[in-house]
Amino acid sequence: MTDSANPIREIGVALLGLGNVGAGVIKLLEENAAAIEARLGARLNVRAIAVRAFDKRRRVEVDASLLTTDIEGTLARPDVDIVCELIGGTTDARTAVMTAIAHGRHVVTANKALLAEHGREVFAAAEAAGVDVYYEAAVCGGVPIIRVLREGLASDRVEHIHGIVNGTSNYILSTMTATGRGFADVLAEAQALGYAEADPTLDVGGGDAAHKLAVLVGLCFGTAVDVHAISTEGIDTVEPIDFRSAERFGYVVKGLVIARDHGHAIEARVHPTLVPKNWLLADVPGAKNALYVHSYALGASMYYGAGAGMLPTAMAVVSDMIEISRNMLARAAGARAMARPFAQGQRPLLPLDDIRSRYYLRLAVVDEAGVLGRIMTILGSHGISIAQVVQDESAAADGAATTHIFVITHEAREGNLRSALREIDGLPVVQRPTVVLRIAGAGNNGNAGKQ
Amino acid sequence: MTDSANPIREIGVALLGLGNVGAGVIKLLEENAAAIEARLGARLNVRAIAVRAFDKRRRVEVDASLLTTDIEGTLARPDVDIVCELIGGTTDARTAVMTAIAHGRHVVTANKALLAEHGREVFAAAEAAGVDVYYEAAVCGGVPIIRVLREGLASDRVEHIHGIVNGTSNYILSTMTATGRGFADVLAEAQALGYAEADPTLDVGGGDAAHKLAVLVGLCFGTAVDVHAISTEGIDTVEPIDFRSAERFGYVVKGLVIARDHGHAIEARVHPTLVPKNWLLADVPGAKNALYVHSYALGASMYYGAGAGMLPTAMAVVSDMIEISRNMLARAAGARAMARPFAQGQRPLLPLDDIRSRYYLRLAVVDEAGVLGRIMTILGSHGISIAQVVQDESAAADGAATTHIFVITHEAREGNLRSALREIDGLPVVQRPTVVLRIAGAGNNGNAGKQ
Repeated sequence: MTDSANPIREIGVALLGLGNVGAGVIKLLEENAAAIEARLGARLNVRAIAVRAFDKRRRVEVDASLLTTDIEGTLARPDVDIVCELIGGTTDARTAVMTAIAHGRHVVTANKALLAEHGREVFAAAEAAGVDVYYEAAVCGGVPIIRVLREGLASDRVEHIHGIVNGTSNYILSTMTATGRGFADVLAEAQALGYAEADPTLDVGGGDAAHKLAVLVGLCFGTAVDVHAISTEGIDTVEPIDFRSAERFGYVVKGLVIARDHGHAIEARVHPTLVPKNWLLADVPGAKNALYVHSYALGASMYYGAGAGMLPTAMAVVSDMIEISRNMLARAAGARAMARPFAQGQRPLLPLDDIRSRYYLRLAVVDEAGVLGRIMTILGSHGISIAQVVQDESAAADGAATTHIFVITHEAREGNLRSALREIDGLPVVQRPTVVLRIAGAGNNGNAGKQ
Repeated sequence: MTDSANPIREIGVALLGLGNVGAGVIKLLEENAAAIEARLGARLNVRAIAVRAFDKRRRVEVDASLLTTDIEGTLARPDVDIVCELIGGTTDARTAVMTAIAHGRHVVTANKALLAEHGREVFAAAEAAGVDVYYEAAVCGGVPIIRVLREGLASDRVEHIHGIVNGTSNYILSTMTATGRGFADVLAEAQALGYAEADPTLDVGGGDAAHKLAVLVGLCFGTAVDVHAISTEGIDTVEPIDFRSAERFGYVVKGLVIARDHGHAIEARVHPTLVPKNWLLADVPGAKNALYVHSYALGASMYYGAGAGMLPTAMAVVSDMIEISRNMLARAAGARAMARPFAQGQRPLLPLDDIRSRYYLRLAVVDEAGVLGRIMTILGSHGISIAQVVQDESAAADGAATTHIFVITHEAREGNLRSALREIDGLPVVQRPTVVLRIAGAGNNGNAGKQ
């Protein structure tokens, strides 16, 4: 199968969509054509690019004869071996991917929403049709985390993961940490700089992260979960005062996805989290992504890099094309047992009340004698034990009559904490609902940090 | 190729060597047998274990009937599909691997020395025989860096790498940094704790790291280099005073491997290095490993985890067995175009005089007026420009008449620095040869840090 043994073979590729990532794919295929041909012993040839409209401005120049609005026709072309789905969303993309598979085409997709919501259907169809579906770009952009989990850790058993998988949120939180500015202010700047979308909901609300988490759960634990049932909290609720007190307690606020295999159920959650400063995850800057994995044999490992962007994402897509081509050249495409995600069917999510975590609480209370004692008593009566308490001496935002109490708890069951807080927030001396942030490193991952 | 379509197939494995890693392989194959079988649709069956002597104490219990001292006979067994070479060294291991390939056996090896010194021969023989050779455990233990570079970044072009690839050295340097203790003291403790060998030369002298660097260069740049010609400096020359002043300048001392593709030549070096504190590499603790990669499309990425140890290393070995088995089940073993390392033949190493770096200098000089000026003048006359100078006010080790001058240079050509130092060290006021440490982040990798 080397270039010396056979004449150079052509592998036909069709792109569906020519936005940011599509433009990067074209650019990378052109720039690295010689290197890819040398490594592969074959040429990746773009045969068609399906677009919605011909006259849109593109980030890359392409031969106009390649452009078409006929997706159906593109998928049916006999000279197309690999279909690269870059449409996004779960309606047109789903139809296109399922049709491509039905036509016997191999598929590369960067579409986390599609895989999170219809992954079982897609992979089952691919297996039945004997085609490959690769999706490295769906999680952490160019960081090859899918290959790491599927092949690098094939002999291992993942116990839990902690990840920063949304670059926009990490950019905003990092900037808030560095500058002390508020969420709305930093978001507006991120939008002006192009780091955040005009509608940032999917990024800052945690929906995008939940999609990626569902894909990771599928791969790490072999199981599908109901992505819409994943507990998802956005980063927009964290206030500058919480960044400052997190810092004082030795933490950095990061938007994390967290998952853990409990056997009967899967713990999966997306929320702003206090990360201990000595964790490598605490140092992930700007719009970067990182996944921290804890597995039985390897222990702690971490994978870090660009989670978005034209060239990083395109790099993952083209590497997938190369992988499928290697399979094709060995006449093994669709035939390798691929540790199919979701292979074990669906498992329930662990109810949020049943997770165990340490917690950061910020209580706004009337500044009078005895308040702290009453709150501590209620927490204690619900089995919540306290690691640290700090009462804010400075005047609170609501005026001199109100003060802040900051509490760091030991590990506790979330249901118990919620019961205690219902009681506490009902006290007349408590001015506003208590702010609650979870702290990373609880549960049975005592050494989920650097070591 | 799934377990439902075919009866469970047995894949025969032979281990050569039953030391630490071999014991881990047996343990992992037993413990994860069901999971591996489910993922693979096949069973990995250990058919023979070749050992030097029968009566040695082992870290794992094995069926005595599997043990043999007959390597030749083991390699010729028709029921052995995959040979796992865990002998180490470059003589017996080379013979065994070449014989296994000649018999048409697929090979898994953790042997960096063998690949660094005879990699071209091994991979050429494997290609001719149509067998797979996998070697994930050869670099960074269980961290799947080989897969990341070979497949994850298959469409990219690596520009330079910085790595911590020797856990023993990192453990010693981290402990020296944390405690201020001297090298000999910390080494003795590491030996007592089992973190360092009785003869630590290969680890602390940089030889092990040079072997791994040669393998990484082969994979990243497609070229073999003369491993014995790689500039290699041990960590044993760094003194506590250098840790303290590195800290003052904003650096941490780490043992790094560094490589960069210059086209006509390969820059490759192993030495203790001042790493900026805000780099993720600066935070790699204890015996952990990490590889920082800078590539054209992805930009900065980093891979972190256990670089040694029984289970982490065995995990990489067994994952390689699974990968080969996947290829076998798809009838594609030996047939996939694997981005063979060293494929482009050998390229020369860039002479050390031609590298560009920033430098840390520690000069021991007579404490008298005009000395600093003379030294600065000499550095300037060789084109070395200075970023920072600090003269030590406290009494130096050699008595009150001697003082230390610490210099951080801007980026300079090493040859120029060496010429300047020959002149400086010849001055009567200079008491001892100047201590030189390179600073990471020089060359054309301005953003080799976190971003």
